[in-house]
Amino acid sequence: MIECTLTVELAERSYPIHIGTNGLDQLANLLKDVFKSKQAVVVTNETVAPLYLDAVKQQLHQLSIQVIEVVLPDGEQYKTGQYLDQIYSVMLVNKCDRKTTLVALGGGVIGDMTGYAAATYMRGVSFVQIPTTLLSQVDSSVGGKTGINHPLGKNMIGAFYQPKAVVADMNVFDTLPDRELSAGLAEVIKYGLIDDIAFLEWLEANIDALMSRDKEKLGEAVAWSCRNKARIVAEDETESGVRALLNLGHTFGHAIEAGMGYGVWLHGEGVAAGMVLAAKTSAALGYISEADVARVISILAKANLPVEHPKLGLERYLELMSVDKKNEAGKIRFILMKSLGQSFITADVPVAVLEQVLS
Amino acid sequence: MIECTLTVELAERSYPIHIGTNGLDQLANLLKDVFKSKQAVVVTNETVAPLYLDAVKQQLHQLSIQVIEVVLPDGEQYKTGQYLDQIYSVMLVNKCDRKTTLVALGGGVIGDMTGYAAATYMRGVSFVQIPTTLLSQVDSSVGGKTGINHPLGKNMIGAFYQPKAVVADMNVFDTLPDRELSAGLAEVIKYGLIDDIAFLEWLEANIDALMSRDKEKLGEAVAWSCRNKARIVAEDETESGVRALLNLGHTFGHAIEAGMGYGVWLHGEGVAAGMVLAAKTSAALGYISEADVARVISILAKANLPVEHPKLGLERYLELMSVDKKNEAGKIRFILMKSLGQSFITADVPVAVLEQVLS
Ligand SMILES: NC(=O)c1ccc[n+]([C@@H]2O[C@H](COP(=O)([O-])OP(=O)(O)OC[C@H]3O[C@@H](n4cnc5c(N)ncnc54)[C@H](O)[C@@H]3O)[C@@H](O)[C@H]2O)c1
Ligand SMILES: NC(=O)c1ccc[n+]([C@@H]2O[C@H](COP(=O)([O-])OP(=O)(O)OC[C@H]3O[C@@H](n4cnc5c(N)ncnc54)[C@H](O)[C@@H]3O)[C@@H](O)[C@H]2O)c1
Ligand SMILES: [Zn+2]
Ligand SMILES: [Zn+2]
Repeated sequence: MIECTLTVELAERSYPIHIGTNGLDQLANLLKDVFKSKQAVVVTNETVAPLYLDAVKQQLHQLSIQVIEVVLPDGEQYKTGQYLDQIYSVMLVNKCDRKTTLVALGGGVIGDMTGYAAATYMRGVSFVQIPTTLLSQVDSSVGGKTGINHPLGKNMIGAFYQPKAVVADMNVFDTLPDRELSAGLAEVIKYGLIDDIAFLEWLEANIDALMSRDKEKLGEAVAWSCRNKARIVAEDETESGVRALLNLGHTFGHAIEAGMGYGVWLHGEGVAAGMVLAAKTSAALGYISEADVARVISILAKANLPVEHPKLGLERYLELMSVDKKNEAGKIRFILMKSLGQSFITADVPVAVLEQVLS
Repeated sequence: MIECTLTVELAERSYPIHIGTNGLDQLANLLKDVFKSKQAVVVTNETVAPLYLDAVKQQLHQLSIQVIEVVLPDGEQYKTGQYLDQIYSVMLVNKCDRKTTLVALGGGVIGDMTGYAAATYMRGVSFVQIPTTLLSQVDSSVGGKTGINHPLGKNMIGAFYQPKAVVADMNVFDTLPDRELSAGLAEVIKYGLIDDIAFLEWLEANIDALMSRDKEKLGEAVAWSCRNKARIVAEDETESGVRALLNLGHTFGHAIEAGMGYGVWLHGEGVAAGMVLAAKTSAALGYISEADVARVISILAKANLPVEHPKLGLERYLELMSVDKKNEAGKIRFILMKSLGQSFITADVPVAVLEQVLS
C-alpha cells in the first residue's frame, strides 16, 4: 500500500501532504505537532459528518484537544459569506483565539471556506485539510487558494493561505459517489495535459483501475497529481505566471458551471468539457492535431466525464468568461495546448475561432 | 514646511509614506508608479467625499485613470461585512480585475475596510491609503492591519495586507473635528509611552501647538509616530511579539468602545482612558510612580482626551476583554509600563488589582 509524505516547498510556509490508506487512523500521530493550543474547530458538512467526523474527533481527543464542530449544509451554493459568517460566529462564541486550529473535513467547498475562515479570523489562524473527495485531494488542498463565492462571481473573494498539513486518505473514496470520483479524475487528467505526457500515458494505461477504485493506483494518481501541482505552485505562489496553467479547461469550465447555475454541473465536469474546448481551440489554431483532440476526449470519456459543452451561445460564454480572474485589461485569457502535455497561456484567440468551437 | 517620505521596510512589501502639506495636490506625481492598470476604485464616505473626492479624482484623471467611486455611509457601525460586500459588488459590476487599484480616502474605518477589500478581492489587488484623520495617518495606515467588525467583536475579521503607498497631507486637518484631532493625539502620545521618552517630552513641550493645528508640528508628530510604528512593525510584521506593544491602552480601550456601544466613544478616546488604566495598573503593581501616572493624565487632558474610564464594573470589563485578539489560552494579556517610555506585555495581572483600578 502506498504511504508517502510530499512536502509543498514554500519556504517558511512549507507543509506536508500525507497520502495513504491510514491517514484517518493515524491522524493524532500525523498532526501531533500542528496544534498550537488545545482547541480545534472542525468544519464539515451534513453529508461528511456522519461518515468521518467521529473518527476525526476520536483522534483529536487522543491529543487532548477540545473539538468544536461546525456542520454546514452540503453544497456549492453554501460557499458564501453567510455560511462563512457562521464559522466566524461559532469561533467567537467559543472564544477561539489566534492559537486555535481550524480543520477542514470535506471536499473542496469545505476546504476553501475553512481555509478562508482561517486566513481571516483574527487576521489568520492555523488550519489543516482533510480532503475527502478526489478533487479536493489533488487540487484544492495544494496551493493555498482559499475563498468563497460572491453572488456576482464564483471564488471572487479569497486569500492565498497555506494549511499546516494535509491528510489524504484513500479510504474516504469508499463512500464517494461515482460522479464525484469522475469529477476528480478530470483534474487528475489535467495534470497530464498541462506538462506531463508521461503521467498522461500512465493514466491512459490505468484509467480502468482508477475507475474501479483501486486504492493503490488512486494513491499513485493522487501523489503524482499533488507533486505536479506543488511543483507549479512552488514556482509561483501567488499566481502571476506559470501557475495560470493550472487553469487548463477552467476558463470554459467556470463559464459552464456559472452558466448552468452552480451545482448543476460539477466543477470537474465543467473542467472536463472545458479541456475538450481548449483542445478543440488549440486544434483550430493549428497547435495540435484532431487525433490529439480525440485522445483527450477518449480518456475523459473513459472517466465517465462530459466531453460535450452545453450550448449556451457565444455571447453568453463571452459574458461569463469576461469575469475570469486570469483576465487582464478586459482581455479573456485562455490556457491552450501547444502539443499534448505542453500547455501555455494566451489572450490571442479570435472570436471567430471561439464561435466555431463553441457552436 | 515639512515634506518627507518614510519607507516602511518589509522586504518586497516595503512602501513609502509621503508626509507633507501638498500630498493631495501632488497625488498624480506621488502615485504615478503605483497603478498597474487604468482602473482605480476610490472608496470614501459621505463626509469626506464632498471635501476631497474631487481633488483626488482630478489628480487620477491626470494619469488617465478611470475612477470608480464607492461612497459609504459614515461611521464605525458600517465597517461590516454588508458594506464590504458593497465594495465587492461595485468592483464586480465594473469588471475590476487583479490589476485594479483600490484607493482608501478617509479615516481608519475607510482605510481598514478598503485594505481588507483589497486583500480579499480576487485574492488580492493593490491599494493606496490617503488617510484623512490624524488617527489614520499615525496608526491605521502603517502596519498593514486591515479588517472589519463582526457583530460579536470589533476587528475580528481581517488580514495583514500592505498598501503600495500612503499619502498623509496635513491640509486635511483643516476640516477635521476637534474631537477627532484629539482622538488621533491619543495614538501619537501612545508612541511616546511605548518606548520613546524623547518623543513624549517633545509632545509635552508641543501639545499646545498641536492642539492649535500648527501644520509644521503636526507633520513632525505624524512623521515621528509613523517612524516609531514602522520600526516596530518591521520587527514583527504579523504581530507575534514586540508589535503587541502597539496595543498599549487598547485592551481596556477596546473594552470601553465595545461596552459603551461602538460610536459612543471614539477609538482614540477609549485608548486614552485605556492608557490611564494601564498606567494605574502599572503603578498598582509597583512599576511606575503616582507622579508618572499624573504625567500620563496631564498630557492626555491637555489633548482634551478623557482620562476617566466609564464604570462598567469589573465583570463586564473582564467579559469584554476576554475576546481580545492578544489573548492566549483564555488569559487576558495587558500592555503595561515598566517605566515611563518603556512598556511590556504581561498576562500576570491579579484580578484584585484590576478590581481596584477599574472601580
Ligand atoms: N482551492 C482550490 O485551489 C480549488 C481547486 C479546485 C476546486 N476548488 C473548489 O472546490 C469545490 C469543489 O470541490 P469538490 O469537488 O470536492 O466538491 P464538494 O466539496 O462539494 O464535494 C462534493 C460532494 O461530495 C460529498 N462528499 C465529500 N466527501 C465525501 C466522501 N468521502 N464520501 C461521500 N460524499 C462525500 C460532498 O458532501 C459533496 O456533496 C468548488 O467550490 C471549487 O471552487 C478549489
Ligand atoms: N488598521 C489599523 O492598524 C488601525 C489602527 C487604529 C485604528 N484602526 C481603526 O480605525 C478606525 C478609526 O479611525 P478614525 O479615527 O480615523 O475614524 P473614522 O474613519 O470613523 O473617521 C472619523 C470621523 O472623521 C471624519 N473625517 C475623516 N476625515 C475627515 C476630514 N479630513 N475632515 C472632516 N472629517 C473627516 C469621518 O467621516 C468620521 O466621521 C477604527 O475602525 C479602528 O478600528 C485601525
Ligand atoms: Zn479545478
Ligand atoms: Zn488604536
